[in-house]
Amino acid sequence: MSLNEEIEILCADARSASRKLALCSTEKKNAAILKIAEELGKESERIISANALDLAAAERNGVPRAMLDRLRVDEGRISGICDSLRALAVLEDPVGKSETWSRPSGIEITRVRVPLGVVAIIYEARPNVTVDSAALCLKTGNAVVLRGGKEAINTNTALVEVIKKALEDSGMDPHAVELIRSTDRESANILMTMRGYIDVLIPRGGKGLIKNVVENAKVPVIETGAGNCHLYVDEEADIDMALKVTLNAKCSRPSVCNAIETLLVHASIAPKFLPKLAAEMKKYNVELRGCPKSCVLIPDATPATEEDYLTEYNDYILAIKVVDTLSDAIGHINKYSTGHSEAIITENKENGEKFLREVNSAAVYVNASTRFTDGGEFGFGAEIGISTQKLHVRGPMGLFALTTEKYLVRGEGAVR
Amino acid sequence: MSLNEEIEILCADARSASRKLALCSTEKKNAAILKIAEELGKESERIISANALDLAAAERNGVPRAMLDRLRVDEGRISGICDSLRALAVLEDPVGKSETWSRPSGIEITRVRVPLGVVAIIYEARPNVTVDSAALCLKTGNAVVLRGGKEAINTNTALVEVIKKALEDSGMDPHAVELIRSTDRESANILMTMRGYIDVLIPRGGKGLIKNVVENAKVPVIETGAGNCHLYVDEEADIDMALKVTLNAKCSRPSVCNAIETLLVHASIAPKFLPKLAAEMKKYNVELRGCPKSCVLIPDATPATEEDYLTEYNDYILAIKVVDTLSDAIGHINKYSTGHSEAIITENKENGEKFLREVNSAAVYVNASTRFTDGGEFGFGAEIGISTQKLHVRGPMGLFALTTEKYLVRGEGAVR
Repeated sequence: MSLNEEIEILCADARSASRKLALCSTEKKNAAILKIAEELGKESERIISANALDLAAAERNGVPRAMLDRLRVDEGRISGICDSLRALAVLEDPVGKSETWSRPSGIEITRVRVPLGVVAIIYEARPNVTVDSAALCLKTGNAVVLRGGKEAINTNTALVEVIKKALEDSGMDPHAVELIRSTDRESANILMTMRGYIDVLIPRGGKGLIKNVVENAKVPVIETGAGNCHLYVDEEADIDMALKVTLNAKCSRPSVCNAIETLLVHASIAPKFLPKLAAEMKKYNVELRGCPKSCVLIPDATPATEEDYLTEYNDYILAIKVVDTLSDAIGHINKYSTGHSEAIITENKENGEKFLREVNSAAVYVNASTRFTDGGEFGFGAEIGISTQKLHVRGPMGLFALTTEKYLVRGEGAVR
Repeated sequence: MSLNEEIEILCADARSASRKLALCSTEKKNAAILKIAEELGKESERIISANALDLAAAERNGVPRAMLDRLRVDEGRISGICDSLRALAVLEDPVGKSETWSRPSGIEITRVRVPLGVVAIIYEARPNVTVDSAALCLKTGNAVVLRGGKEAINTNTALVEVIKKALEDSGMDPHAVELIRSTDRESANILMTMRGYIDVLIPRGGKGLIKNVVENAKVPVIETGAGNCHLYVDEEADIDMALKVTLNAKCSRPSVCNAIETLLVHASIAPKFLPKLAAEMKKYNVELRGCPKSCVLIPDATPATEEDYLTEYNDYILAIKVVDTLSDAIGHINKYSTGHSEAIITENKENGEKFLREVNSAAVYVNASTRFTDGGEFGFGAEIGISTQKLHVRGPMGLFALTTEKYLVRGEGAVR
């Protein structure tokens, strides 16, 4: 059997399971999620052994330490995963929410939330994404086809076996959660072409992965994660607040999509602010790349190129640009941003409101760190990614993003 | 200047206009819509003269009579267009609708509806689509780039000149409504690649047009209109109701997407129902193509092929299939349908509810005609197409479908 046939069969099984899953009650879906938590707890040793194989292989292959850490599963992490499953079980189920109205023609219309059908996820090394994605899809009545990275294949296989067992024990079709075992690039490319089986494909991972999916998929995609985020320090900023928020937005976790990549500073505050900022950034070994004006104020900075302003470093590097007006700052952002998250620090309410209104990104902040763009921080309880597209869903994607609507129309022989 | 450069400049102008338009108040947008109605009324002679050129060219080129009728603009139609503009002006504006909540971290989050930005429409011969699309986009704060068919180019040019004049008179950027003058296929293909300028492309027209857009666009698309719709006559159907609704769904306007293409009939009711239906269909000269069982019951019917069940005829042709169970009917629909609209005729409430639950289409009907799938009939007041996709919007698309959301976050120096 070719890899193509193998993946098609697996997708067809998932599609068939999705039909049954769409009809499950919230109670039954929640019970299955709790059952998965229970089984993961019981089977933790087996999962940790499988993970040890992955870790050993990764070390042999010289995988960087940061990635090894993302790959690692231990008792603490399993217990963390189980906690989030239990938290998910108590969240409100969007499926079935409806509104009904009547029309003069005699028809009664109900708009109801329904699952999307089959969700496919292509992701990288983090095994928690396996359980997390499966549970979010299950909660919203969707079947899921998972295609994780090769580094985590043993861990993912063990996790999905445990999930399938829990589904069976809960009286549900185990095909509702499928894992593609092949981790060749080829398998991801085949999955992207499964029109008629996959209702939406969500890439979760780095830039290269997302670009490949967006450019090559033949099924509907929700683009996630690319975050070339900006912070603008207005001429009327509180300098201490600006320092605190810039440090948080750049240094608290530079590898994530809601960290900032470019700092814009109003010319009138730059001489006071930038030297202080440079001193703080030095403590974190942040490399600063500045425009000519900022390089004058920060002797350590190297010159920034056009390319720098387009780059999502995901690293301890910060591009800096001094601007003459708030409108210049907004113009720079609307030109270079990926539309994820941007912030202004200002004590001037009107400037803050202008920034909120005119910056064309999913999340726009006044006097707060861009690091808050996150389903948990926004109060959605769960998140399957952060959308940087405008259609369907924008910003952190909670359970609602995994549903669509359907119109049910009842009449007594009404014709038009 | 190449056609590509010309279209890029036009799209860039529209993008720049969209930034200003997004900040306009509802009052200002409504005033502009009313101004367009006023100007169209005043300039009706000029529009009708331009239309006469198009009609003459179309007649010379042997365009079919039905298409000539769609192309024709007269005083009555202009007055109809103006009426719908006035109706649009009083509809609720979704832009600016918001909800706000606070989080323990100290941030306050507002989710607000905002325009998509620049909407592109590729359509065919109907000049009313020009005004209609421009006004719907204006109402929702979007700039629009129109690319109509070659048959209507003189009419469209006159209409857009009048619209631009009304925009200027209303103090708005006339680039908010742009018409691509080139009607070569090339110009449509170029428009589809304008990434960074076009936020969403909506094709409005026939199958060929939609297929070309969906397969070749590099910008986000909302797929509309393909309607291989079904009606199922259940074993417990009221025969008179089934006859009335089938006739309406097939014959009231066979050329539209919400007309039915295949009739499914339960085996136990087929001997009573099909001969009566065939007699009625004869009055409309409907060609019937049936499965072997239905051909026995309808001597005039010709055998249906697999291809027939996949075809959206948009014509006086109906495919027929006798099925043994409700589940078989649902299975057939979920296999062959384009996911637009499907109906069941039944007196059995449980069968009706099963059909509503299990049929995977945008609009599902019990005892009513599929012809009701329409923004006006659903009470949306306006419609820019009917989506057959699951992401973003499904079914008739009203004003809400032309907006997206944005998160505004306010803090007092909050960090994570």
